[in-house]
Amino acid sequence: MEYRRFNDKIVARIDKGEEILEQIKEIALKENIKLASVSALGATNNFTVGVFKTGEKKYYSNEFKGDFEIVSLIGTINTMNGEFYTHIHMSAGNDKGEVFGGHLNRAIVSATCEMVIQIIDGRVDRKLNEEIGLNLFEF
Amino acid sequence: MEYRRFNDKIVARIDKGEEILEQIKEIALKENIKLASVSALGATNNFTVGVFKTGEKKYYSNEFKGDFEIVSLIGTINTMNGEFYTHIHMSAGNDKGEVFGGHLNRAIVSATCEMVIQIIDGRVDRKLNEEIGLNLFEF
Amino acid sequence: MEYRRFNDKIVARIDKGEEILEQIKEIALKENIKLASVSALGATNNFTVGVFKTGEKKYYSNEFKGDFEIVSLIGTINTMNGEFYTHIHMSAGNDKGEVFGGHLNRAIVSATCEMVIQIIDGRVDRKLNEEIGLNLFEF
Repeated sequence: MEYRRFNDKIVARIDKGEEILEQIKEIALKENIKLASVSALGATNNFTVGVFKTGEKKYYSNEFKGDFEIVSLIGTINTMNGEFYTHIHMSAGNDKGEVFGGHLNRAIVSATCEMVIQIIDGRVDRKLNEEIGLNLFEF
Repeated sequence: MEYRRFNDKIVARIDKGEEILEQIKEIALKENIKLASVSALGATNNFTVGVFKTGEKKYYSNEFKGDFEIVSLIGTINTMNGEFYTHIHMSAGNDKGEVFGGHLNRAIVSATCEMVIQIIDGRVDRKLNEEIGLNLFEF
Repeated sequence: MEYRRFNDKIVARIDKGEEILEQIKEIALKENIKLASVSALGATNNFTVGVFKTGEKKYYSNEFKGDFEIVSLIGTINTMNGEFYTHIHMSAGNDKGEVFGGHLNRAIVSATCEMVIQIIDGRVDRKLNEEIGLNLFEF
C-alpha cells in the first residue's frame, strides 16, 4: 500500500494480497484520522460480506472467491471510545457482471484498489446500542 | 435521526423505522442546503426502487422486504423552482449477498443508516424536460 | 452535456445519447483537472463493463442493453505520463432491480446522468505494472 495526502484528502493504492480494512486502519493511524468518508474501486479475489439479521441481532456472512471487480466501496472512518473504527460496505461484480455485496468483513486485493479518503475536521464517536445490537454514531 | 455539521460536511445517523428520503429533506431544510452530494451505507428491511422506462417515460418500481444491507446510496440535494429536491439511487444486498437497486423511492431503516453530506457552495436548479420526461439539472 | 464549476467541485448533467467516459474526458480537459474523485447516478440503455482476470491479465467484458438505472458510478480522474486518465467502476439495475456492474468501458446515457466531481489539489500519475498487467497509481 502506498498513499499520498493532499491537505484533507488522501489518495491510496492498496496492493495485491493486502486486506482492505487493515490498510484503511494503517492509513488512519499514520495520519491520525478521527473522522472521514471513504470511497474506492478495485479488484478482489476473496471477500466476505455480511448481512445483519435485525431479529437475531447477528451478522451472517457470505464468502466469495474468483475474479471480482469492486464496483462500490463506501463508508467512514471514525472512533469508538476515542480509538480507530471503520465501517465499510462493498459490492463487487463477477465475470458475468452479477453484483454481490454487503457489510465488509474482509477483502483481499487481487490487482489493485484505488481509494479516496476525505478527512472531516470533527469527531463522531460510537456507542453500543443494546436495542439494535450495533455500535452506532453517538453525537 | 441525529446529525452534526462540520463546516461544509454533515455526518448523520438515521434510525430504525425512519424513512431515508424524509430524513434527507429534514436535514436539508434545517441546514438550508441548496446543493450537496450525498453518500451513505446502512441497513433496510423495506425499500422501493424504480427503473425509468425511457420509451414510456414512466417509472416502474420494485419493492423488497427482508434483511438487506444498503451497499451504496449515492445522489444529490439541490432545488427545483428554488425548493428542496433530492435525487438518490440505492443498492442493497440480501442474506445471500445478492444486490438489488435503482432509483430510490422509499427505504425504511432497520438498524441504522450512516450518511455523509458534502455541501457545495452553489446553486443548481431543475426543470422538467418534456422530451425526457424527467426533472433535469438546469444550469 | 453541461456543467457548472463551484470552486473545487463540478456538477454535471450528461445527456441522452452521450457516452459517459467521453464526457468525463471533455470536462477534465476543459477544466484542466489533474486529480479528482467522481461519483454519479443516472440511467443507461447500453453499457459495457469488464472484469479483469488476474491469471490471464486480461479484461473480459459484458454488454447490457435495456432500461437500466445507474445505481453507482465511482472512480477517479488522474494522469498517466501527465495526460488525462480516468478509471471508473459502475453498477446498474434492470427492471427487476437486479444489479450488474464492473470496470466501465462504455455507457450510453438514456435519460440523464448526474455527476459530481471533487477536484483534488495534487498530482498522482500512473505507470504500467508488468506483474499486475494494469496501469497503477504511481506515487
